[in-house]
Amino acid sequence: MRAACHAPIRGDFTGLRGLEWDKMLHCPAQAARAIPTISAATSMSQTRHVFFISDGTGITAETLGHSLLAQFPDTRFRNHRLPFIDSTDKARDCVQRIKDAAIESGIRPIVFNTLVDPSAVAALREADALFLDLFEKFIEPLENELGQRSTHAAGRFHGIADSQDYKKRIEAINFTLAHDDGVSHADLAEADVILVGVSRSGKTPTSLYLAMQFGIKAANYPLIPEDFERNRLPVELTRYRGKLFGLTIGPDRLSQIRQERRPNSRYASLENCLHEIESAQRMMKREGIKWLDSTAKSIEEISTIILQEVRLDPQSY
Amino acid sequence: MRAACHAPIRGDFTGLRGLEWDKMLHCPAQAARAIPTISAATSMSQTRHVFFISDGTGITAETLGHSLLAQFPDTRFRNHRLPFIDSTDKARDCVQRIKDAAIESGIRPIVFNTLVDPSAVAALREADALFLDLFEKFIEPLENELGQRSTHAAGRFHGIADSQDYKKRIEAINFTLAHDDGVSHADLAEADVILVGVSRSGKTPTSLYLAMQFGIKAANYPLIPEDFERNRLPVELTRYRGKLFGLTIGPDRLSQIRQERRPNSRYASLENCLHEIESAQRMMKREGIKWLDSTAKSIEEISTIILQEVRLDPQSY
Repeated sequence: MRAACHAPIRGDFTGLRGLEWDKMLHCPAQAARAIPTISAATSMSQTRHVFFISDGTGITAETLGHSLLAQFPDTRFRNHRLPFIDSTDKARDCVQRIKDAAIESGIRPIVFNTLVDPSAVAALREADALFLDLFEKFIEPLENELGQRSTHAAGRFHGIADSQDYKKRIEAINFTLAHDDGVSHADLAEADVILVGVSRSGKTPTSLYLAMQFGIKAANYPLIPEDFERNRLPVELTRYRGKLFGLTIGPDRLSQIRQERRPNSRYASLENCLHEIESAQRMMKREGIKWLDSTAKSIEEISTIILQEVRLDPQSY
Repeated sequence: MRAACHAPIRGDFTGLRGLEWDKMLHCPAQAARAIPTISAATSMSQTRHVFFISDGTGITAETLGHSLLAQFPDTRFRNHRLPFIDSTDKARDCVQRIKDAAIESGIRPIVFNTLVDPSAVAALREADALFLDLFEKFIEPLENELGQRSTHAAGRFHGIADSQDYKKRIEAINFTLAHDDGVSHADLAEADVILVGVSRSGKTPTSLYLAMQFGIKAANYPLIPEDFERNRLPVELTRYRGKLFGLTIGPDRLSQIRQERRPNSRYASLENCLHEIESAQRMMKREGIKWLDSTAKSIEEISTIILQEVRLDPQSY
């Protein structure tokens, strides 16, 4: 049974041979899969293999790693996420994976790791690689500064240390889903922020990111042609002016996005997009609603600006 | 006009005096707000102020910082996110904020920074603080290893370098929303994964996280009492067995979650929860669907396990 539960070695061989998935995963025997070999899985040479190794999910290590590697646009990198490495045995398995990658590419890999357990770290260091240890680099200066030993508790990278916080976050996601696209007016008083803007200006992904990353209850409400004809804010929103934040978008980009939804419609036409955007901006200006242009921004950037502007200061998860 | 657009100094004075918001934010004059002073905003002593300073959103710096600080549970930290610090002038404003915090708390602050521009870094270093520089610590070893100078391009931490990637991610979010809770069977063939499980087993937040963080098209489909009576998988799913992944949950926890939704209902009763969970697990076992127990896991952990199991290896954003 256990053999069938080994994580597969995939195209780029993320997943870990020998990892005891059965502790956390039910794996019916009939789901056993063939395990392709590494040599069959990769062929590019001159590619630098990069491993993100963590006793947790590895998401933090990977996000930081991508940001750093983006500073070297001329190098081709191949990324491997090895999460849940919480024993020396698993660390030894990682060593083998790193060695295989070095042989395959002919050059030593780069390893970003956030392992906390010293014996697991020692086992991992047997590999020949450039180790960029997020824990080691920063924990010692912090210990010196604070005059305390760190707890060396594993799995704290991107953990859910505090279950109250986690519950709040899940509640925010549920709230945001229930208040997407003006679906419900109920409980709008509970919203931390209400995003407004024309259809497809970026309200929904931004609301979800605010909920997911920051535990913010973010409703969103579309401004539609009827609102512009009446020339006033939807009446449901007027009670919550202090929570409103607007998104706008360039007309070309809006037309392009809408074309994908409803090709050759009036809805998607550049002329109509321009009209809606101008009307919405006029309305927001008159109503004293702050807004920003989402055209060239990521949902991370939009969300960060909104947090500052609506005076919310949640923890990032 | 510009004066009215300064980011406010909030309760814990995140937001930056003198930041030129007008470049990215429309700020109607009537939205000007009073700016509370720092001394009024904080009162706890023996609290260590922590700054996350970035030329981008600061989300990466903050996530890593939280993980490291969680290793020191006996110290109280107060966090301040200072994003979009992309000039020496803004860096100098940060210095003042750090100084104010040091005076207020009587102890020097800790600064996690990801600034790339050397002159902005130099300006920031004027402050008396423990600097934990995510860029500096890792970029030099990477330059040596790769034999290349880094581009020193600012704003690459958590950026949207590749717009194709970003588009894919937004598409995944839209797909996931359109295929939440079995709402639509259309285009299920496009799904990267289809989560199944009883109502409130964690499918929706997990699907959204997979889409948001990894650009995965994650549909989800509830297993309901009618399925258990018929004793077979919903017919819409049988064509996509290879994409199915199950979530289960402890009966106590499920009953608790459902109580909050529909207090004292049969739906929420422990007996019914137990029955549904057992039926669902029996069905998944028979159909060869892998599953995991979501009870004590974060959506990051659940998502990371699913990625490995369904052999998806996307980049983390």
